[in-house]
Amino acid sequence: MSTPSQNSQDRSANLPPAPDVIRAASAELIVSDLAASRAFYVDVLRLVVTEETDDAIYLRSFEEYLHHSLVLRKGPVPACAALSYRVRSAAELDVAQTYYQALGVPVRRLSAGTKRGIGEIVAIEDPLGFPVEFFYDAEHVERFTQRYDVHGAGAIARLDHFNVVTPDIAAARSYYEGLDFKVSEDIQDSDHTVYAAWMYRKATVHDVALTGGDGPRLHHIAFSTNERHQILHICDQLGALRQSDKIERGPGRHGVSNAFYLYLRDPDGHRIEIYTQDYYTGDPDNPVITWDVHDNQRRDWWGTPVVPSWYAEASPVLNLDGEVADIVERVESSEAALTIGADGFSYTRRDDGSKEGVKLGEQV
Amino acid sequence: MSTPSQNSQDRSANLPPAPDVIRAASAELIVSDLAASRAFYVDVLRLVVTEETDDAIYLRSFEEYLHHSLVLRKGPVPACAALSYRVRSAAELDVAQTYYQALGVPVRRLSAGTKRGIGEIVAIEDPLGFPVEFFYDAEHVERFTQRYDVHGAGAIARLDHFNVVTPDIAAARSYYEGLDFKVSEDIQDSDHTVYAAWMYRKATVHDVALTGGDGPRLHHIAFSTNERHQILHICDQLGALRQSDKIERGPGRHGVSNAFYLYLRDPDGHRIEIYTQDYYTGDPDNPVITWDVHDNQRRDWWGTPVVPSWYAEASPVLNLDGEVADIVERVESSEAALTIGADGFSYTRRDDGSKEGVKLGEQV
Amino acid sequence: MSTPSQNSQDRSANLPPAPDVIRAASAELIVSDLAASRAFYVDVLRLVVTEETDDAIYLRSFEEYLHHSLVLRKGPVPACAALSYRVRSAAELDVAQTYYQALGVPVRRLSAGTKRGIGEIVAIEDPLGFPVEFFYDAEHVERFTQRYDVHGAGAIARLDHFNVVTPDIAAARSYYEGLDFKVSEDIQDSDHTVYAAWMYRKATVHDVALTGGDGPRLHHIAFSTNERHQILHICDQLGALRQSDKIERGPGRHGVSNAFYLYLRDPDGHRIEIYTQDYYTGDPDNPVITWDVHDNQRRDWWGTPVVPSWYAEASPVLNLDGEVADIVERVESSEAALTIGADGFSYTRRDDGSKEGVKLGEQV
Amino acid sequence: MSTPSQNSQDRSANLPPAPDVIRAASAELIVSDLAASRAFYVDVLRLVVTEETDDAIYLRSFEEYLHHSLVLRKGPVPACAALSYRVRSAAELDVAQTYYQALGVPVRRLSAGTKRGIGEIVAIEDPLGFPVEFFYDAEHVERFTQRYDVHGAGAIARLDHFNVVTPDIAAARSYYEGLDFKVSEDIQDSDHTVYAAWMYRKATVHDVALTGGDGPRLHHIAFSTNERHQILHICDQLGALRQSDKIERGPGRHGVSNAFYLYLRDPDGHRIEIYTQDYYTGDPDNPVITWDVHDNQRRDWWGTPVVPSWYAEASPVLNLDGEVADIVERVESSEAALTIGADGFSYTRRDDGSKEGVKLGEQV
Repeated sequence: MSTPSQNSQDRSANLPPAPDVIRAASAELIVSDLAASRAFYVDVLRLVVTEETDDAIYLRSFEEYLHHSLVLRKGPVPACAALSYRVRSAAELDVAQTYYQALGVPVRRLSAGTKRGIGEIVAIEDPLGFPVEFFYDAEHVERFTQRYDVHGAGAIARLDHFNVVTPDIAAARSYYEGLDFKVSEDIQDSDHTVYAAWMYRKATVHDVALTGGDGPRLHHIAFSTNERHQILHICDQLGALRQSDKIERGPGRHGVSNAFYLYLRDPDGHRIEIYTQDYYTGDPDNPVITWDVHDNQRRDWWGTPVVPSWYAEASPVLNLDGEVADIVERVESSEAALTIGADGFSYTRRDDGSKEGVKLGEQV
Repeated sequence: MSTPSQNSQDRSANLPPAPDVIRAASAELIVSDLAASRAFYVDVLRLVVTEETDDAIYLRSFEEYLHHSLVLRKGPVPACAALSYRVRSAAELDVAQTYYQALGVPVRRLSAGTKRGIGEIVAIEDPLGFPVEFFYDAEHVERFTQRYDVHGAGAIARLDHFNVVTPDIAAARSYYEGLDFKVSEDIQDSDHTVYAAWMYRKATVHDVALTGGDGPRLHHIAFSTNERHQILHICDQLGALRQSDKIERGPGRHGVSNAFYLYLRDPDGHRIEIYTQDYYTGDPDNPVITWDVHDNQRRDWWGTPVVPSWYAEASPVLNLDGEVADIVERVESSEAALTIGADGFSYTRRDDGSKEGVKLGEQV
Repeated sequence: MSTPSQNSQDRSANLPPAPDVIRAASAELIVSDLAASRAFYVDVLRLVVTEETDDAIYLRSFEEYLHHSLVLRKGPVPACAALSYRVRSAAELDVAQTYYQALGVPVRRLSAGTKRGIGEIVAIEDPLGFPVEFFYDAEHVERFTQRYDVHGAGAIARLDHFNVVTPDIAAARSYYEGLDFKVSEDIQDSDHTVYAAWMYRKATVHDVALTGGDGPRLHHIAFSTNERHQILHICDQLGALRQSDKIERGPGRHGVSNAFYLYLRDPDGHRIEIYTQDYYTGDPDNPVITWDVHDNQRRDWWGTPVVPSWYAEASPVLNLDGEVADIVERVESSEAALTIGADGFSYTRRDDGSKEGVKLGEQV
Repeated sequence: MSTPSQNSQDRSANLPPAPDVIRAASAELIVSDLAASRAFYVDVLRLVVTEETDDAIYLRSFEEYLHHSLVLRKGPVPACAALSYRVRSAAELDVAQTYYQALGVPVRRLSAGTKRGIGEIVAIEDPLGFPVEFFYDAEHVERFTQRYDVHGAGAIARLDHFNVVTPDIAAARSYYEGLDFKVSEDIQDSDHTVYAAWMYRKATVHDVALTGGDGPRLHHIAFSTNERHQILHICDQLGALRQSDKIERGPGRHGVSNAFYLYLRDPDGHRIEIYTQDYYTGDPDNPVITWDVHDNQRRDWWGTPVVPSWYAEASPVLNLDGEVADIVERVESSEAALTIGADGFSYTRRDDGSKEGVKLGEQV
């Protein structure tokens, strides 16, 4: 029987070269009410508006100099319309086109300006069912790194990563390894079932996280701040606005990635993570960390229980024709079922007996 | 029918003067295993050991110059053995003795040195059933305010307050008003049932919080840090030690008091709050804030649900003979029953309908 | 020969009771250009505008609920027009009037509303030559403690203290001791010449600091933030606005008071300190700390040299007729001359020889 | 006449391929007293000791998993003995050897273990005169990222960069461009004289900074923290230890790089920077920022003057035979002479006249 990584090598042996991806660069979300979305992304999160049209808002964060890292587009069904990776040069677009045609997935070439501020794009439906775009050229705009006069108390610095829900983590990992993404961390059980994996091109813990579940769905996109107090301020501000129900989970410290985190839900329920201080992964021998799915500190280093909605809910995605993609169910066991609730099992100290070390005050 | 404050005035009219209390100053906890407690209070919380004997450890935090603000004493039943208030001068001890004798509660006078590092003490069982001590004289030790060479990343600065569980908040408030404590904030419902009240002598939100429930029980004692990252570090450190199950609730931002908080449980289950950045209350007209018991942000400004154990569990207290005090049940309605679980009701925005605005991912 | 404190006792024995001061509460500064001052205090420091007229702006910070803690008034000569202390009740105004009449200094009683938002005022020229006001009644306005939606990244919480330049520190200290202010810290030399003293009513290091020099002049007024990053942001923002020349000294850590600090100069040269995290002084036996004037870490715990302008420059003050008060020269030796420059002497480690331990890179 | 970059292209056209450098990875400093150095690097900076011998200490910071990032070796003359870059694979060592032999500089191949914990090394004297080592293989040790139980309040996360003093910045830049380092920022005057340049391989502002001056000398090595309060703590701790004279410059915010910084001097005068929060530079079109040498905010965003020692002093370097390398004087004009002191010129606002906008309280 072949392992996933052997599959990957076998397949890639027959494939043309994969495009050289730099990093997760931009996302496009369909929202039902632009004004409501603007109130969240601009008035609360203080993302910078690069451009605004009747049906879309183009946003970036303070250290970004490309035209946008987030597009909010008005549409009938809240969904993820695109996840965009930047490639190392315009020539990589041809590489991408050839590669995905060989993979046999839908591929379209969009001329420069089809998406505002962005040059030519190769848009595909990836083998996991996600609408993914590759681009190199983009309009440069002012980098607000030192514009402290407009930074708010919750200043957001960069788009950091995507987190996608997909039923078969081994297959998804193999696909991303084909694009030369490397695994930094994953969650497994003793039978080597993989529940989630974190994969990167830029020298951080991830550009994309793979979360096991019914998919394709977008679990969240994540932006980074420089310090933790900026994340705490976002919570305080949502409290002041009586919108604390937009806080879904956190703030807390991840076990996986070691980052300090917060999960918000936008007015359409799209999940946004605010994230800071994972670690450098840029050396070729960066150690891979595997977490036991039953380890109570893997998802939150402080043992705070994960709320069920965080496991259950995610945004649908659109295919290249703008239709909501069909969902494939996960067959393997569910992290949520294994670890929370009446049947779940988790531990804080590895040598504790079953059910030991469960956090005081556990609610379910 | 007289109101509680009228009762208070009536009663105080017939009472001798109350002692002039400066602040909450020290607590004594009975613990079952000194070594386990030391690992928590000294190795994790990094409290400074002033003195250590076979059966007790005397601790202080970095900005304190009196001998101790916490005594851990080995004993058969984990309990609170004393809550100590400092009075403004040694002469106030006579005032206290006379006052409590007039109140008709048990009063004992302890000679200097009965408690290490502390001068003469007037020990009483207060009308709420708590073992309370008053003292003025105390041994001065080095104040470690600028001993940054020994401050850890989670440096604790001061003892801040006590939180006591007592069945009748109106009566408890009236008693403390007799001691010239003032209310900064409270939690009520539309029928004026009071669920909790925060009362102070020093110019902060509280020296003592009154929490409605079966009592007398000690809900928690609280220490302050100077900044929030110091509280976050304590969480991170407990994660590193695989003791995250000692984190009961938080970190978060309180609605009441506005302080940033964390609740820990020590090895015997005594609850310790780490707390920072409430606000100045020292002016005579400091506005009193009343919170609606159904306001989802009163206990946590970010709307994070309070874990049931936080409402249900508390430490027993000892009487002056060292026996565990009997518990009186609360008759009025319970904040926990009203606001969490299947029957509870809470709102985030006051004008929302019932059950609206409940935090996403609510677990119960 | 009597010591200053004996003088104080002798004098106070013959004086009527002094008013019961709560704290430093407000200052009024004459500025030459209201728009320029507004750009600094409102657009940069983000103080909250309570009220604004043709010739004045009334400002408060986020945790204050009285009408204002700073008045900027347009006038021909930049100066300090008033330092206001709040007293414990309206009845204390009569006490103040009687007290200052007995002291033989100019006293005026201003009816409620003479100063916007403030009730009756007793205005005096204090024995040090400063225009000082006492008030109790004041209009309450919204306390923005939890209005995180309007807090900027450099959110200022409270007015903390005044710092006044006066030639005879012993006399000034004696005067303030007559008002029941206590000393928390001072700077002396081995001959007991006192160069500065910090005195408080509220339970912090000071409500007023006395700085030896030609006076009466206002050295600075200070506002507090809750955390240090808020102070750092103010610096970053001034950099972004290309106004870094408004930063005179710091940020740094004071030796005296242990507070983290920053000194700014407003458009008229009035000095504003932003300050955080001194320590609790509310117990009667709070230890007094005396620093050696030659200790290199007294003014900055990190040994950063004090810039000469900080010693030399200060704002003139007005008398009750609105005229600039005459300056009396300091006779005793100057801290600046003793400790910086070619003739100065300072040490980092007490047992080092002269000139040892001077900070690397010392410029003068 | 050819420009430096043309030179670079010309030369590189004739050169074999350059080795693929990942990042600045390690430095070796000769110190005169290991115990004194240990007190600084281990007891104050809390670097982790991987290994210790009679004549050397091998240190790493909390997020590093290679054997060391700093070697302190006892020797007769305090100096820099090596700056080490990690290459992408062991095969790159051959590439490096061939490349430097073609460049005509001294090259030595050291077998694995010659330096503890490190595999084979190619050691060279680079064209600027610095002792530089390339390695790939290294012993993995525990990564302390989540060992919060041993992180101090000033926890250092990573080695970030080297800063070298060299007389001819154009030549030095050209040399590093030959190694595929890119410029992120530089300092020039209107005549295009370059005073300093920042160059990177990893996706930060720099792995190496080139500072114009007499060289080869090591200006400093820099370590990163995750947050700014950790840097502030290091200052506070040095104050507590009465070693504030080890603080040479800062803390402050750099204009160049935007990082928050602090410069320390170790017991031998080697300069160590503690640094945090520069920005991502990993995209191929990362905008290059050129600062005017007269811009008062280039070196410190808050306009704090640079102390003269920071410009004047640096550590000598050793050649491959362990002898102190000869110094070549800089011919072009000096940044220090141009911008500080009696003859210097700088501005805060570009449109101000000469000498305008100089920071208040400027000392020289």
